[in-house]
Amino acid sequence: MNQQMEIISIGTELLIGKTLNTNAHWMARRATSLGITVKRITVVRDDTNDIAKIVHEALKRKTRFIITTGGLGPTFDDKTLEGMAKALNRKLEVDEKALKMVREKYEGYVKAGRIERVELTPPRVKMATLPKGAEPLPNPVGTAPGIMMKVEGTFLIALPGVPSEMEAIFEESVAPLLKKEAGEVVFFETSIYADNIMESTLAPLIDQTMHENPYVYIKSHPKGEEKKPHIEIHFSTTAKDFKTAKDRLGKAIVQLSELVQKTGGKIKLSVRVGE
Amino acid sequence: MNQQMEIISIGTELLIGKTLNTNAHWMARRATSLGITVKRITVVRDDTNDIAKIVHEALKRKTRFIITTGGLGPTFDDKTLEGMAKALNRKLEVDEKALKMVREKYEGYVKAGRIERVELTPPRVKMATLPKGAEPLPNPVGTAPGIMMKVEGTFLIALPGVPSEMEAIFEESVAPLLKKEAGEVVFFETSIYADNIMESTLAPLIDQTMHENPYVYIKSHPKGEEKKPHIEIHFSTTAKDFKTAKDRLGKAIVQLSELVQKTGGKIKLSVRVGE
Repeated sequence: MNQQMEIISIGTELLIGKTLNTNAHWMARRATSLGITVKRITVVRDDTNDIAKIVHEALKRKTRFIITTGGLGPTFDDKTLEGMAKALNRKLEVDEKALKMVREKYEGYVKAGRIERVELTPPRVKMATLPKGAEPLPNPVGTAPGIMMKVEGTFLIALPGVPSEMEAIFEESVAPLLKKEAGEVVFFETSIYADNIMESTLAPLIDQTMHENPYVYIKSHPKGEEKKPHIEIHFSTTAKDFKTAKDRLGKAIVQLSELVQKTGGKIKLSVRVGE
Repeated sequence: MNQQMEIISIGTELLIGKTLNTNAHWMARRATSLGITVKRITVVRDDTNDIAKIVHEALKRKTRFIITTGGLGPTFDDKTLEGMAKALNRKLEVDEKALKMVREKYEGYVKAGRIERVELTPPRVKMATLPKGAEPLPNPVGTAPGIMMKVEGTFLIALPGVPSEMEAIFEESVAPLLKKEAGEVVFFETSIYADNIMESTLAPLIDQTMHENPYVYIKSHPKGEEKKPHIEIHFSTTAKDFKTAKDRLGKAIVQLSELVQKTGGKIKLSVRVGE
């Protein structure tokens, strides 16, 4: 079985519909491409109790990876570390390694002429105040470090909410770990498009094709208008190598295409293949 | 206290990073503008047990509204109603009112020349097979009806995943209910932009302003590059009428702008105001 992940997106802006959750989308795609199964995404407000509750629930499910995004910055409503400490019943304390990272950032800002001198004010020290036992992850792009801790069998990881920072820390410190844990697997996907067939007519044909191609997952996504049905049919598989994956999808695509064409449907191959 | 909502987004495509969750974003924005507090969004795979578990958890939290999107169509992996029935320990049965809605849709497709005759095949009857006690909601755009049921103090509502269908059923059957439940409240928001100030310098100024404007929520969103800080400051409030809301935000904006300018920061007002 694949290693599993839960993503917890923290930020009131996501729950008032101000901000589209592109972070969870990006991370789900990257983790999937590395061979990890993302089981759940939860979005929660900037509220210490809500965060603590959700982290606690996720830990109870013993998912291998729990990754949060958001809530690591200097403002009062950056509450992720507080919520995590509460979930784990651990103290928050200034971490020397994290403080060094933060200090070096501000030293850089002085050199760049953005600020006059390094002052480690409380909002700045806050970014280095971690749940006991957490390891800071360097932030190549912004100021707040990410954090990682091992809690029994789970890697609990917190990344910032600014997309460029989240992505940079993910690539540098998280992706190598996921890759190692997932082992030698690849996720492969492609889509074809069906016209002139209704989804309810297509449904049993997909059933049949999946039944005969047990490692291939097929899902239809209606895209057209009521008057002109146009259905994306998405094929995906996780395999040990690209050849196996491609062969599997190729076989399933040929089989389903023939079934669709028999009903009078038309198939168009997509150009987007794999990653 | 505002009435609360949880959104449950159902679809493996959201967890492999194929599809961006615009449905949850749209619904969170609409519900917020109607005066509802969205507490949590959960995204889950097309898996009956996962869906049942998440619906069960949400019901235990006694949230007033639980709205799912996705998984109502004719294919094998449309599992929302099965998951709900399992969560509620109710039987699934063909609902005559829902079946009539589905039949009329296919009669329309015959008239439009899309299909030759109405055949209520198992995948089509599936869309009218509801947990016992559920009320079908007409779908003005597509085929699968939405559903609504009252479970103790909670409205449990399921909408399709195709955005145009979800939005149409929401506006026709859900929004009026939310409006009635929320009462006479409006949500009002606006943003200003701060340049030449770092987020860690801004943080205590926001604290102070929120402290003196207890009904206003203020959150900073860094938008710039490391070399050129540019911060969106988002103000929002829920009030009984627009005048109260506007006055509140106006006062907070003036106050925070003055504080920012004192540090040498520059403020730019945004053009986007309220809805």
